[in-house]
Amino acid sequence: MAVGNGHLPELRPVAGIRLGAVEAGVRKPGRRDLVLIELESGGGCAAVFTTNRFRAAPVRVAEAHLAESRSIRYLVVNTGNANAGTGERGMHDALACCQAAAEQGGCALNEVLPFSTGVIGEPLAADRIVQAMPHAVAALAEDGWTGAAEGILTTDTRPKGASTVVEIGGQPVTLTGIAKGAGMIRPDMATMLAFIGTDAALEPGLERAALRQAVAHSFNRITIDGDTSTNDACVLMSTGRSGVAIERRDSEAYRQFVDGLSRVCRDLAHAIVRDGEGATRFVTVAVSQAGTEAEAERVAFTVAESPLVKTALFAGDPNWGRILAAVGRAGVGDLDVERVDIWLDDYPIAEAGSRAAAYEEAEAAARMAREDVTIRIRLGRGEAAASVWTCDFSYDYVRINADYRT
Amino acid sequence: MAVGNGHLPELRPVAGIRLGAVEAGVRKPGRRDLVLIELESGGGCAAVFTTNRFRAAPVRVAEAHLAESRSIRYLVVNTGNANAGTGERGMHDALACCQAAAEQGGCALNEVLPFSTGVIGEPLAADRIVQAMPHAVAALAEDGWTGAAEGILTTDTRPKGASTVVEIGGQPVTLTGIAKGAGMIRPDMATMLAFIGTDAALEPGLERAALRQAVAHSFNRITIDGDTSTNDACVLMSTGRSGVAIERRDSEAYRQFVDGLSRVCRDLAHAIVRDGEGATRFVTVAVSQAGTEAEAERVAFTVAESPLVKTALFAGDPNWGRILAAVGRAGVGDLDVERVDIWLDDYPIAEAGSRAAAYEEAEAAARMAREDVTIRIRLGRGEAAASVWTCDFSYDYVRINADYRT
Repeated sequence: MAVGNGHLPELRPVAGIRLGAVEAGVRKPGRRDLVLIELESGGGCAAVFTTNRFRAAPVRVAEAHLAESRSIRYLVVNTGNANAGTGERGMHDALACCQAAAEQGGCALNEVLPFSTGVIGEPLAADRIVQAMPHAVAALAEDGWTGAAEGILTTDTRPKGASTVVEIGGQPVTLTGIAKGAGMIRPDMATMLAFIGTDAALEPGLERAALRQAVAHSFNRITIDGDTSTNDACVLMSTGRSGVAIERRDSEAYRQFVDGLSRVCRDLAHAIVRDGEGATRFVTVAVSQAGTEAEAERVAFTVAESPLVKTALFAGDPNWGRILAAVGRAGVGDLDVERVDIWLDDYPIAEAGSRAAAYEEAEAAARMAREDVTIRIRLGRGEAAASVWTCDFSYDYVRINADYRT
Repeated sequence: MAVGNGHLPELRPVAGIRLGAVEAGVRKPGRRDLVLIELESGGGCAAVFTTNRFRAAPVRVAEAHLAESRSIRYLVVNTGNANAGTGERGMHDALACCQAAAEQGGCALNEVLPFSTGVIGEPLAADRIVQAMPHAVAALAEDGWTGAAEGILTTDTRPKGASTVVEIGGQPVTLTGIAKGAGMIRPDMATMLAFIGTDAALEPGLERAALRQAVAHSFNRITIDGDTSTNDACVLMSTGRSGVAIERRDSEAYRQFVDGLSRVCRDLAHAIVRDGEGATRFVTVAVSQAGTEAEAERVAFTVAESPLVKTALFAGDPNWGRILAAVGRAGVGDLDVERVDIWLDDYPIAEAGSRAAAYEEAEAAARMAREDVTIRIRLGRGEAAASVWTCDFSYDYVRINADYRT
């Protein structure tokens, strides 16, 4: 199940980046489960990883390689096995995958970053990935984004991609990205991974700053079930081939670049929510008039993760009392409930902490029954705002998460 | 659905407390929905209420009456309507219910505490409660605990009560309580309410202290879905009729009393979890070797409220990776994952942050398939510990919460 048609847009190639997806047989036969991404020499690379204290072996290896290497040349991504909770052996396996790419590609071991997603706690069949590496190298192509978008999927029901061209100083700059999700996040089979490429050039510090800024208001603002994976990662690669260099943080060029990058990240993040496990609705929780952005975010997440709100959304039941109760327990100690207003889209359901005077159940239910629902909450405390995106909580969520290993 | 047989134990009368349950027709016909509890003159009363910033009218009235009145004589409890999100009218309705009890019982208005549970945002039919009050007074009886336990239920599948006699200074002291729950907490139909009586005598400050202490390790340690009601309340009434007076906080008598009260609270809290919405398993999450008790509690709640852990429990799937990932995101910033061990009951499933060496899926699955499951987590950081109780997340949870209003 997924919300909307989920049409994969055209993914523009990024000069200097090639991708290949092949079948390594890590878990299931008949499925491409190994994706190799090549970044030409001289490109830049930045990444953000899960904040979970349990981090899978590939995450630890990727962080170390990013820290010690001046350039990154290859990303090796496998599905079917997360290589997490696998101890020392897991580290060896992650390095073996990197070594295979380094040998085939003619670079140093620490110029390769590994990524894994799938079952945790089982040893990774690294030998199959090593054996398949020559095929992955042979499959590399600049128009490989769509194949790679398919190759990184696990329980996702459809590939996810976004692509845009932004004009910076009169020059076109391309930004293209792919992602996978499903549960946000099932630590077993559905880690969130996102890989984004651009032909702009950025200094390493600026590239990291741009990625963090874009992720903060996109991937870090979505939730399926509040769980955080051991393997989450989002990577930005830059080739500089457009001839456009972003050089200062206070420049118009940087602002334009971050706008484009944020748009790609938000599109990918929304695509993950729309394909959330068991999702039947795409829900925006928009909190305004908060004291601080952190406060707005906390209230939005509390509403977005409330099982009672999520089951009401599944039922198409405009249960404003559940929304109100979630706002009330979000930890805003001095909240004045008589200043809180709530809308479904533009329809008022609660005013001054009580049911809206003009509220009609049938009218509210019609809003709640749409595929795209916005819950707008005004706290009456200040000027800050934040939006969070989530999906509803359906029978299928329970079925998928209770049954998939059996 | 509910876990275990849920046999209601014998509820010993408490001298000086009488209870009556009648049908007022607040919502559904053919069901007792009004409970009146009478505390004889000279008794003591303490209460704790929801921490939700949205508090229903009866909660606000009860708090005010407790603060301004030297004695409490009546508790008026209705089901079918929570009288929450009802604005000014809600306050008038709550006071009208108190007034009716005050007139019938011959006491001051502020010697009556109102409690409501049920649908929120709809006006309370206070007139029906007022009309039924003479019948409620006529029904008052010292052996009315079982009838009252039934009268306060909403979506609960069975009544919940606990009763004990503790010996204090060679004298028997009785403690009897009743509770309702179901979802912890559905703000509409399943607020948690608990009413406990004792024939000990306690100074007001001591009675509040004893109640807070008992609640902290019982009602405040259970979770069905992480939601907190607008109407939660737990009340302790004391009559002094046993002749036993608890006079000092540092006395053996106080310790013995709190032990008994804690046992009653824990039994009621566990009964609420066993009857949790859609529950098929009763789950104890016991965290030890934490740096502080607050840290242990936070880790336990994060595991207990993880939808991924809860659906795995429903499936009887010993998915240690989900438990491990929940521990990792519980906000213990300097957690050393290689010191974390996890057991199902006494069976090791994770050691030093990885799958336990002797782990066998069939053996672990057998533990996970029991009605009562304990997840034991050792953090390897210190000496503090905390246990939290919860239930699993089933199709029925979604069904109950998605369908009940339609």
